[in-house]
Amino acid sequence: MSQNAQPQPRSSARGSFRVSALGGGHGLSATLSALRVIAAEHLTAIVTVADDGGSSGRLREDMDVLPPGDLRMALAALCDDTEWGRTWAQVMQHRFRSREGVTGSLDDHAMGNLLIVALWELIGDSVEGLRWAGTLLGARGQVLPMSRQPLTMSGVVEPLEGQSGLEAPFNNGDRLSSQVALATAGSLGRLRDVQLHPAEASACAEALTAIELSDWVVLGPGSWYTSVLPHLLLPELRDALYETEARRCIVMNLTPHTDETAGMSPAEHLRVLHHYAPGLRVHRIIADPASVPGQEREEFAEAAGLLGAEVRYHDVAKAGQPDVHDPLRLAIAFSEVFGG
Amino acid sequence: MSQNAQPQPRSSARGSFRVSALGGGHGLSATLSALRVIAAEHLTAIVTVADDGGSSGRLREDMDVLPPGDLRMALAALCDDTEWGRTWAQVMQHRFRSREGVTGSLDDHAMGNLLIVALWELIGDSVEGLRWAGTLLGARGQVLPMSRQPLTMSGVVEPLEGQSGLEAPFNNGDRLSSQVALATAGSLGRLRDVQLHPAEASACAEALTAIELSDWVVLGPGSWYTSVLPHLLLPELRDALYETEARRCIVMNLTPHTDETAGMSPAEHLRVLHHYAPGLRVHRIIADPASVPGQEREEFAEAAGLLGAEVRYHDVAKAGQPDVHDPLRLAIAFSEVFGG
Repeated sequence: MSQNAQPQPRSSARGSFRVSALGGGHGLSATLSALRVIAAEHLTAIVTVADDGGSSGRLREDMDVLPPGDLRMALAALCDDTEWGRTWAQVMQHRFRSREGVTGSLDDHAMGNLLIVALWELIGDSVEGLRWAGTLLGARGQVLPMSRQPLTMSGVVEPLEGQSGLEAPFNNGDRLSSQVALATAGSLGRLRDVQLHPAEASACAEALTAIELSDWVVLGPGSWYTSVLPHLLLPELRDALYETEARRCIVMNLTPHTDETAGMSPAEHLRVLHHYAPGLRVHRIIADPASVPGQEREEFAEAAGLLGAEVRYHDVAKAGQPDVHDPLRLAIAFSEVFGG
Repeated sequence: MSQNAQPQPRSSARGSFRVSALGGGHGLSATLSALRVIAAEHLTAIVTVADDGGSSGRLREDMDVLPPGDLRMALAALCDDTEWGRTWAQVMQHRFRSREGVTGSLDDHAMGNLLIVALWELIGDSVEGLRWAGTLLGARGQVLPMSRQPLTMSGVVEPLEGQSGLEAPFNNGDRLSSQVALATAGSLGRLRDVQLHPAEASACAEALTAIELSDWVVLGPGSWYTSVLPHLLLPELRDALYETEARRCIVMNLTPHTDETAGMSPAEHLRVLHHYAPGLRVHRIIADPASVPGQEREEFAEAAGLLGAEVRYHDVAKAGQPDVHDPLRLAIAFSEVFGG
């Protein structure tokens, strides 16, 4: 860790880029699985810590820890494609299930969440605990939380255009104060005034250093409001993204209409980022041609222009699974974008 | 594993003994911590699987698995004395605690129990899952369950000599049918007719092979009825102990009066083993001089004679902790006993 924190000349040779990938959940896993192939040792995952649902939600409630779920998924994605790495990735992702008819206390907890929490309790620092987890797993790169402080999110939900009102339990203009509620509400209406709490939480210092020393910073794909946006809502992290000499790249979702972005076009996705982080300059946007219909491409290019970005279309979906990123195709896209 | 199962010439050079250690809990951990120093690769732990209390009890009830607790302790004891090994041992032994005032679903679960159960669920075989656990931890030797089948114990409790009756919840002559109840009842009265269920359960085949190919088999120390005796109650395992050409060694407890052996002298401990396994021949008994008072030594030697054994007195307690075995002192004792 301390070696990585030493300033070193920015790399440029193809295949030895320093890359920081920001996000959470399955989207970040997709990016990391691709970047692992081409960036290996110089790879830093900077992960959201605002999840309050599922196994992570129960753990942070009971134990006063960061939600480990997105960190676990990032670690699993960085495991090698060897018997050791694959076994560990499976062990980390394994969810406990009680025998039929029994509701056990472990049900739905992911094994890796528990391992991470155990290391945090033993070692007493979230970054150092994750470093140990990565070492035990033989994971490539490093996984960092965006903040050492557990965060929450809130936002207001409003009806979509042409919709008269929202269905219960959501009322127009209500402020929802959990990430789980936001993700659900976004499938029913439009989110606005999304905030991170505490608003002035400190960013993880190691994450700021990684961003400063990167050649490329990658945002997305992922749940747009709850995995991609949070990094831009944390002032120290946003400032680091504004100021770094690293180039920035956004990877678009394959399906713009996710649970939390009902009815949003690809262009609107970019306008949301611009709205919350008007100073963010982006160099490249990777989009799959199938995810931006021909008639929307001009509007999409204009929205990219707000960020100063150029759009690159790459076939990055898995054959036969149009809504899943293919790690190797995405690796090719990164390779071409990073190479110039 | 398959390599270990190949018949190979019995070793005899000092320091390269093949040793199988039978037991459970802290007692077996003490033996393994000592044997790890002198036997390293040729070490097999054969562990009781009748525990139905605590974290293990909840897991076997919810998930229909072997109780992992004693297996976990054995694995932790076989971790190297390096930063990696010590960290893993700590992680395996770590018990979750919720924040103050909260009763969380993970409370009191040992991290290593959950890792073992996750591997069992993923791999589908208890022996193979433990092999993976050992590999991940870099543990020396191998840890095997005495049976692939979860077992239970039962026994009858009777008043001690001179005692008029037992206190509630135990009644004279009641058959108690859980290991936890036996361990508690043994502090109030005398246990008799202790049984293992199912009575004809199969022993773990890999454990039988290890016993057959060992130079030495070690029983004890530990909870006499619930950690040392169970191996002698499983017919296939008892027969293997009768028939192996390996020499057998018993390590006595430092405190004969444990929770489950109230009022029992060291000699009575040996007579209990002889009672349940009259065909068991033992070569050496290691006892700390402080645990067998001078006036009991003759009776103790006579009881040892029932098993065909010679008693060797060794200082094996930790300095300042007379009821805890010192791994290095115990290693010296083993080394002297095995060496002749």
